[in-house]
Amino acid sequence: MNGYNVAILGATGAVGSRLIDQLAQSTIPVKNLKLLASKRSAGKILQFKGESLTVEQTTVDSFKNIDLVLASAGGEVSKKFLPIAVEAGAVCVDNTSAFRMDPDVPLVIPEVNRNALKKHHGIIANPNCSTIQMVLALAPIRQKFGLKQVIVSTYQAISGAGQAAWQELLDQTKQHLYDKPMTAKITPVKGAAKHYPQAFNLLPQIDVFEKDGYTHEEWKMIHETKKILLDDMDSPDIKVTATCVRVPVEIGHGESIYLVTADKTATVSDLHTLLATAPGIIVQDEPAKQLYPQPLTATGKRETFVGRIRLDEENPGAFNIWVVADNLLKGAAWNTVEIAECLVADDLM
Amino acid sequence: MNGYNVAILGATGAVGSRLIDQLAQSTIPVKNLKLLASKRSAGKILQFKGESLTVEQTTVDSFKNIDLVLASAGGEVSKKFLPIAVEAGAVCVDNTSAFRMDPDVPLVIPEVNRNALKKHHGIIANPNCSTIQMVLALAPIRQKFGLKQVIVSTYQAISGAGQAAWQELLDQTKQHLYDKPMTAKITPVKGAAKHYPQAFNLLPQIDVFEKDGYTHEEWKMIHETKKILLDDMDSPDIKVTATCVRVPVEIGHGESIYLVTADKTATVSDLHTLLATAPGIIVQDEPAKQLYPQPLTATGKRETFVGRIRLDEENPGAFNIWVVADNLLKGAAWNTVEIAECLVADDLM
Repeated sequence: MNGYNVAILGATGAVGSRLIDQLAQSTIPVKNLKLLASKRSAGKILQFKGESLTVEQTTVDSFKNIDLVLASAGGEVSKKFLPIAVEAGAVCVDNTSAFRMDPDVPLVIPEVNRNALKKHHGIIANPNCSTIQMVLALAPIRQKFGLKQVIVSTYQAISGAGQAAWQELLDQTKQHLYDKPMTAKITPVKGAAKHYPQAFNLLPQIDVFEKDGYTHEEWKMIHETKKILLDDMDSPDIKVTATCVRVPVEIGHGESIYLVTADKTATVSDLHTLLATAPGIIVQDEPAKQLYPQPLTATGKRETFVGRIRLDEENPGAFNIWVVADNLLKGAAWNTVEIAECLVADDLM
Repeated sequence: MNGYNVAILGATGAVGSRLIDQLAQSTIPVKNLKLLASKRSAGKILQFKGESLTVEQTTVDSFKNIDLVLASAGGEVSKKFLPIAVEAGAVCVDNTSAFRMDPDVPLVIPEVNRNALKKHHGIIANPNCSTIQMVLALAPIRQKFGLKQVIVSTYQAISGAGQAAWQELLDQTKQHLYDKPMTAKITPVKGAAKHYPQAFNLLPQIDVFEKDGYTHEEWKMIHETKKILLDDMDSPDIKVTATCVRVPVEIGHGESIYLVTADKTATVSDLHTLLATAPGIIVQDEPAKQLYPQPLTATGKRETFVGRIRLDEENPGAFNIWVVADNLLKGAAWNTVEIAECLVADDLM
């Protein structure tokens, strides 16, 4: 075998362009790369390892002879095309929410529950961006000290809402700087009934609202976390609650996480030592040097950055931490490609 | 008596200009207004009720015949001049952190612990901006259901760091939009050893770091909250922990607050009813209509806005709420002027 035929579904989006880039840098031997997108984007020329590739419109015939599909074109597109791709013999790593909670679909962060890949039936789901960076930081702590409760508040970058929302933030920013009224046709949620400016503003709505008042983004953080951590280590349920807020940042989600360990003797120093050696994590936590994770310094990096590790002095075993990662890389494209690397390395293609 | 002689100390700052404005709109009868600032700002002309006033340099002689001082020129200035003003017969409402934790100085949010004003000895402290809006939302809940624990993550606007930091955010934003490197000489903390861009970035440092890894801003939220709530209603200690983050917003702090009530039967509907009738609070919480508090819509308002009220379904009696207020008004100038209104109304001048 001298390589895989790979297709990227949704190649022209914010995540798509990074999928191409991460694939180019990966250990996966690529024989041919097919770039797929909607009719609107077909014909665009994109680069892969110095080669010009023309984007093709996705059709039911797009997946013949394809070994690996990396998908990031929206939930409906994945629902429609991935079963066809699997039928045609491909393994699919899906970066949408379409199959994440399907009990037959592994939901994988390689550093946390790589073993779950063994159970795949053709589709592997990439977790939500905000879930990945949180669970990556929590898993080592849970392995060592147990984890009873997690309370998270997110500070999410606009690029997580897609390229058009991202552009709109920049447009709004310019309008505001030049004393023009800000226009909002996408933010906070594309297709929602109401739109509000995101520039110089905080919008506590990511995705649609559920009946209990939580947004679907918050729901995802709660339920995806439980699914992944149960793969990693069977144990009594961990309690999780979340508040998700969009902030006027381009790339890099921040998360303020309050965590309660089962072992009440855990110290800040223990968490430092543990996280400093955990895969995929870089600890940035030197208050005296003003070293802490920031979106601007995390942008373009594959790692997840953890800092501001503090004991809740009134609650032994409870800690505050601050976690930042590039939502388009570890939160999306890199985790997806990393899953594919593991599938290849573990002989699961 | 046909009015008070009032002095505003720090009249030219972001809060100072709003103190003038809030005083002009207040019920306080003003006989004469004296505007005080540093030597650098002396000579500036500012408007009060259509009258042009010249800013004077603050000296030890500035407080003769002054009845009321509203101070917002920094902790060191307050420490130096307020005792002199008190000695000269004035009552001082101080918007700096200089005297907040002094056991002889009431720390007051009028809607919460107005009665504490009776104990004053000439100086009354205005709490930290991030403390005020949180405690205003928590106090009614605590009165009705008891409050055991609070975990807060803040999303704080740059105007809380002063006018120069605010201008720097706008400059950085322009630099970034036009592909120029961002320069940082103030953000996140004036006078700190290192500076980082705030535009399109999150900085988890507000004020200096304490030895335990918490910032002084976080320390303030924890300890000021306890001091105010103990005035409001004696009860066993409430546990409080905080993570404070500066965000690229001009005006309006956001706070994601997790609160645990003593009464495990409290419902979302109970909190709605309670907060909707609480003084100084406007509930904005209709997910179906995408109604929730935002900094842009809270700017210029005296009220504190509460929304996203959700039960933590795995922890009866625990709730997530989202609170936004104009940090320069309820967080500073309005709360200061409101305290002064109460001093006048309660015959405590």
